[in-house]
Amino acid sequence: MKLSIERSDLLKAVAQAQSVVERRNTIPILANVLIEADGSDVTFRATDLDIEVVDKAPAMVERAGATTVSAITLHEIVRKLPDGAQVTLTADSAAGRLTVEAGRSNFSLATLPKEDFPVMASSEYTSNFSAPAPVLRRLFDKSKFAISNEETRYYLNGVYMHVSDADGGKVLRCVATDGHRLARIDADLPDGAETMPGVIVPRKTVGELRKLLDDDDTEIAVSVSETKVRFATPVLTLTSKVIDGTFPDYTRVIPAGNTRKMEVDAADFAKAVDRVATVSSERSRAVKLALDEDRLVLSVNAPDSGAAEEELAVAYGDERLEIGFNAKYLLEIASQVDRENAVFLFNSSGDPTLMREGNDQSAVYVVMPMRV
Amino acid sequence: MKLSIERSDLLKAVAQAQSVVERRNTIPILANVLIEADGSDVTFRATDLDIEVVDKAPAMVERAGATTVSAITLHEIVRKLPDGAQVTLTADSAAGRLTVEAGRSNFSLATLPKEDFPVMASSEYTSNFSAPAPVLRRLFDKSKFAISNEETRYYLNGVYMHVSDADGGKVLRCVATDGHRLARIDADLPDGAETMPGVIVPRKTVGELRKLLDDDDTEIAVSVSETKVRFATPVLTLTSKVIDGTFPDYTRVIPAGNTRKMEVDAADFAKAVDRVATVSSERSRAVKLALDEDRLVLSVNAPDSGAAEEELAVAYGDERLEIGFNAKYLLEIASQVDRENAVFLFNSSGDPTLMREGNDQSAVYVVMPMRV
Repeated sequence: MKLSIERSDLLKAVAQAQSVVERRNTIPILANVLIEADGSDVTFRATDLDIEVVDKAPAMVERAGATTVSAITLHEIVRKLPDGAQVTLTADSAAGRLTVEAGRSNFSLATLPKEDFPVMASSEYTSNFSAPAPVLRRLFDKSKFAISNEETRYYLNGVYMHVSDADGGKVLRCVATDGHRLARIDADLPDGAETMPGVIVPRKTVGELRKLLDDDDTEIAVSVSETKVRFATPVLTLTSKVIDGTFPDYTRVIPAGNTRKMEVDAADFAKAVDRVATVSSERSRAVKLALDEDRLVLSVNAPDSGAAEEELAVAYGDERLEIGFNAKYLLEIASQVDRENAVFLFNSSGDPTLMREGNDQSAVYVVMPMRV
Repeated sequence: MKLSIERSDLLKAVAQAQSVVERRNTIPILANVLIEADGSDVTFRATDLDIEVVDKAPAMVERAGATTVSAITLHEIVRKLPDGAQVTLTADSAAGRLTVEAGRSNFSLATLPKEDFPVMASSEYTSNFSAPAPVLRRLFDKSKFAISNEETRYYLNGVYMHVSDADGGKVLRCVATDGHRLARIDADLPDGAETMPGVIVPRKTVGELRKLLDDDDTEIAVSVSETKVRFATPVLTLTSKVIDGTFPDYTRVIPAGNTRKMEVDAADFAKAVDRVATVSSERSRAVKLALDEDRLVLSVNAPDSGAAEEELAVAYGDERLEIGFNAKYLLEIASQVDRENAVFLFNSSGDPTLMREGNDQSAVYVVMPMRV
């Protein structure tokens, strides 16, 4: 294999690959990126056995071929090369080396045989559709904060992407929850997604996927099977196993009968919660909300460090209510609000509370109260 | 005590105080800042028993008095208050509380009696002088990277500030070394500094001092005794114990007879070292320099990961030389060079190497070679 490639093209491709590679590997080949040159393209493939990313870049291929080399070392080298450099990659399979040349720099890296690289088995996708990057970005960005970290509840360690019924018809829906809070985000159902099986997209995949979604003009090709999900742009393909488990019936958690409505400026609310939480104990982080006619008093009482209280003007017309929450959870859901106003719907101090943005039903959050 | 103060003034003062406070304290009062209000000023005092910082801020003092309160909590609260807020601090010594009020926020913090606060004993300073902030900044910025982390060699855990003889007469000199590299930085001797005893300024003090030195127009009042050093601006006083030990005779380490001179663009050199070091093993970080007529070849050979080589154009007229260094040390001294060219003076591959900026003798660095 011998090829020549622009430093910036190489950097972009290798950056995506090395981010999938786990830093500590017991299987040496998993630290490597598989480089395959053919025609006028070179592909870079990396995997952690659960996720595989394949990145394509234009190159002048002098001699087709393939090899594998440490993804992190190659990334580090390319990152440090001067901008605009032309990089030559030459594989010497007899010597087991890949030579990286640019200007007066010359690197010789240890390789492992391309035959040992575990290429992810292809899958029969039952559903193929495409969605604009901003649509997918919203679905995952607004839900991922609620993903559970508890390994014992592995079926909550991801975002549940599925087709569901909403008031306006069928929607593409992402749900995440850790049992304390829940996010349910809807988008218009793309053509071809109707038959999609519901899949739990793992946390790491959500993080890697995020990098494909930055460009507003990109259309993402999505393929889903019972066991795998694939997201692709013309240059990059991210394939991931999905979590083998059943996502719980979240619909029972979303309260339908909450009638006590409070409307508040989301930014003001978040800042006030953040301030009073300063004195809360590291462990409980409990904040009390006391609601009265158009008036919200946030308070914290921590015997060790002190007390805090702040008043906020809100729209509230129901009877007096006191309810406690984890400050971190309140901050996280308040920071999901893009518009100015957050609408909270309470029932009693012991029941889950619902939050949404204005009257928008396409993004709904639930947070469990705590005793204060 | 009752006073009213601008949020920005309060934030600046408390920020300095809380940075001295250690995050984990076995003595509760050391987590606190001592607030003393009198006349039209309020002072904030914090200490870790080795360093004391006293910060003065203008305030409207309604009732003089003093109390102590958690520095970190107070700082967090003030940081989160809106810009431009007017903050009222009210101490209720009977209840053992400090009330912090701003707008519709209200905090009540636990206090400890001001009598328990350990105020650092004042010292008889044998020498008082003043120096512009940029002069002190240069002395400490260019030397601190060489401070040792080895606790057993505690007398190397700081910067040795003293008066010394140089070619042009007496100078104010800062030296730091960890046995592998050394930095010796000189400045004109300020009036009044002649009698100053040499002191080892601890690493943490150097870090705290740095915050006083950002403003080019500030004149710093420096006071030195055998046991303490004090740096003061009109609003802030930093007092620190010095390290109770003898700094070794560093002059013997600085080679005088190195004649093989290499001149190189410092930025190009640093980038090339950084690149070839990518493949070096985490542990040794060894880089080999091979010098020949106006030509430097940097190389690394790591059996596991690979090899790297880069050529640089340099000015060198002496005989062929091969010498190895720790890449990290080379990078650190190269990054001290403000001008374009770094001048290296070698002797043999086993002898310490000297580096300076051009012909400037006021900043000299020594680095020990390593076998490669």
